[in-house]
Amino acid sequence: MARLVMKFGGTSVATIERIRNVARHVKREVEAGYQVAVVVSAMSGKTNELVGWVNEASKLYDPREYDAVVASGEQVTSGLLAVTLQNMGLPARSWQGWQIPISTDDAHGSARILEIDGTAVTARLEAGEVAVIAGFQGIHLPSGRITTLGRGGSDTSAVAVAAAIGAERCDIYTDVDGVYTTDPRMVPKAKRLKRVAFEEMLEMASLGAKVLQVRSVELAMVHKVRTFVRSSFEDADAPHMGTAEAAGTLICDEEEIMANQMEAEVVTGIAFARDEAQVSIRRVADKPGIAAAVFGPLADAHINVDMIVQNVSADGFTDITFTVPSADFERAKAALEQARAAIGYETLEGEGDVVKVSVIGIGMRSHAGVAAKAFQALAAKGINIRAITTSEIKISILIDAAYTELAVRTLHSLYGLDS
Amino acid sequence: MARLVMKFGGTSVATIERIRNVARHVKREVEAGYQVAVVVSAMSGKTNELVGWVNEASKLYDPREYDAVVASGEQVTSGLLAVTLQNMGLPARSWQGWQIPISTDDAHGSARILEIDGTAVTARLEAGEVAVIAGFQGIHLPSGRITTLGRGGSDTSAVAVAAAIGAERCDIYTDVDGVYTTDPRMVPKAKRLKRVAFEEMLEMASLGAKVLQVRSVELAMVHKVRTFVRSSFEDADAPHMGTAEAAGTLICDEEEIMANQMEAEVVTGIAFARDEAQVSIRRVADKPGIAAAVFGPLADAHINVDMIVQNVSADGFTDITFTVPSADFERAKAALEQARAAIGYETLEGEGDVVKVSVIGIGMRSHAGVAAKAFQALAAKGINIRAITTSEIKISILIDAAYTELAVRTLHSLYGLDS
Repeated sequence: MARLVMKFGGTSVATIERIRNVARHVKREVEAGYQVAVVVSAMSGKTNELVGWVNEASKLYDPREYDAVVASGEQVTSGLLAVTLQNMGLPARSWQGWQIPISTDDAHGSARILEIDGTAVTARLEAGEVAVIAGFQGIHLPSGRITTLGRGGSDTSAVAVAAAIGAERCDIYTDVDGVYTTDPRMVPKAKRLKRVAFEEMLEMASLGAKVLQVRSVELAMVHKVRTFVRSSFEDADAPHMGTAEAAGTLICDEEEIMANQMEAEVVTGIAFARDEAQVSIRRVADKPGIAAAVFGPLADAHINVDMIVQNVSADGFTDITFTVPSADFERAKAALEQARAAIGYETLEGEGDVVKVSVIGIGMRSHAGVAAKAFQALAAKGINIRAITTSEIKISILIDAAYTELAVRTLHSLYGLDS
Repeated sequence: MARLVMKFGGTSVATIERIRNVARHVKREVEAGYQVAVVVSAMSGKTNELVGWVNEASKLYDPREYDAVVASGEQVTSGLLAVTLQNMGLPARSWQGWQIPISTDDAHGSARILEIDGTAVTARLEAGEVAVIAGFQGIHLPSGRITTLGRGGSDTSAVAVAAAIGAERCDIYTDVDGVYTTDPRMVPKAKRLKRVAFEEMLEMASLGAKVLQVRSVELAMVHKVRTFVRSSFEDADAPHMGTAEAAGTLICDEEEIMANQMEAEVVTGIAFARDEAQVSIRRVADKPGIAAAVFGPLADAHINVDMIVQNVSADGFTDITFTVPSADFERAKAALEQARAAIGYETLEGEGDVVKVSVIGIGMRSHAGVAAKAFQALAAKGINIRAITTSEIKISILIDAAYTELAVRTLHSLYGLDS
């Protein structure tokens, strides 16, 4: 019998009434014939309360104790949902990370899953019992200590469990009903995507379409876990909530997308990342080791560098442009001022209020001229492009923040994404 | 180096500020040279919140899930106290029941401790680390499920841990500063006892002096764990909080009491239990099996019978009197009405508003006339005695509830307990 993982976040389990709605979603899938494992987050607000206490107790807390405290939130929800399911006549039991076990490394507070032993859980699934698994947590087996996966880690738990039990699909119930061609709050004509390739989703997630944690998408891609993003607030018993017709976005392999449409769309979505700052270094010697000289001091200052553009040099000198989170802008400039002698640049320039707009689509691989079209369209609207980077399935363009909406709407129309 | 167990209840850990006070108590004992294991309850109110959720989810809950949910309260406190201790410069770590492990049976919700493996904890104690142990919880090892010990179970955890690690003493910090000769709210002249024998404490606890859970006293008696009841609200750093002078009551072996005073007091305390009801059956045939015929139906109805008095028969018939919780009074009478044919009694009488007053003291064993003195004193005050039972170290007297205070004050003076 096919297996299904269903994941519910904090707002979906915030009250017993909402937990009942979750249980109805689960019941529907059990009655459709699935063996179901449910992964739950802590009740909304609980994790913040627990984290607050730890911080009040000690600013410099032991991350192992932080994990022991914070993991309790998911423990509570797993027990409550198991009881609620039983009350509806469904055999169910809760599973803590250490009971399965979900084995992780010892990077407490942001542990990585090493292995999930699916044996015990699948035996109970086969016996007809719903497994209610506490998300976000695991165990470091050598020490026997509780670990947590970091914020949003329940998505990662769900995908990892799906891989471990060989689930047909991992359904992520969220407060949005899927992944859109761009942010619908900015572009009302944005459409929900029926399917998105793992690679595309990775680009979108890291670029700001915060539907799924990046790590969970990476994991889904590696283990080929078909992941369906859907809304938890719709009536659980509505007929359209059955799998085939349900509103949502399936994140899947490129092949599955190709099998369902004659040709991939050239462009799948337009993402944008605010709160970026641009730093440019003019006339640095174009010689081996120069990149290390520039980015070493930034790494030492724990500043994340995103876009990096370096042009072919003209006369033995080149310009380097890159972006950093705008919160780190001043620190980044200070670090480079300090390293001026070691780097040997002529001028240091920066712009604190820029935005990165990205055009994403696996179809780009087989289509020439996608980028050129974008540059022309932006030029026609008088939008100045500060920097460009491209990958196989993405074009990222850095522009002044004031033009964000105009650029996103222009590109959204340009590639035929308007509904 | 000597080991010490310190137990703190819910009100003592209700806020981070109070947890800091607990940590100061711990620090004082570490600095006095003890290896310390601390046992903590859930923050005050948390257990009720968790129990409330489980009940809201399902009136007929699975006790295994109840335990998974409710045990999280102690998990939180253990982590928070460990962090607070570390913040004060004391090495510390939290221990959950399953990590030690504290092995219990599978009577979820009211599990009994089978064994505590003290190996891992003592190794860390020896290494100079404070062990912060989540009270109230354990693990049923065969199934790997979390268990809880029932309300007040943290006292039991503390005593059991003390036995397992060979602690010199188990300090129970509560919101009272010890055990009194009787309830000070009723008798202002009641004195705090310096020492009480395990047997006496058992009689007092089960009779209503709710300082310590009965099970924890039983356990302390069996394993000879010296248990010191003291207040958690005094200034942790006050000089008198050092062990020898500290205010509190030591519950210990009879020998230790005798070693500290020339002779045992004849009477140690006066206890009383309200909410009792008396049932009397008149003229039942005095033949084998009659007690079973009477008490069988009550057991079937899950009614707890306390005092039982049966007189020697006069003419082949006898009267049987016993007490039940007043909440079960009507049900008890109904059960006996139904069983009337099988028992064969003449009349069934009852009184719903009685109280059991008990005189307790290990010194009674070697003193004659203790009971007679009590009966005379009560008679002199015009208090009618409804029934009497005695054991080696206790005389219990059933009287009308209206005379409770008069009887307790009379007996308290009679045996020289007034301060």
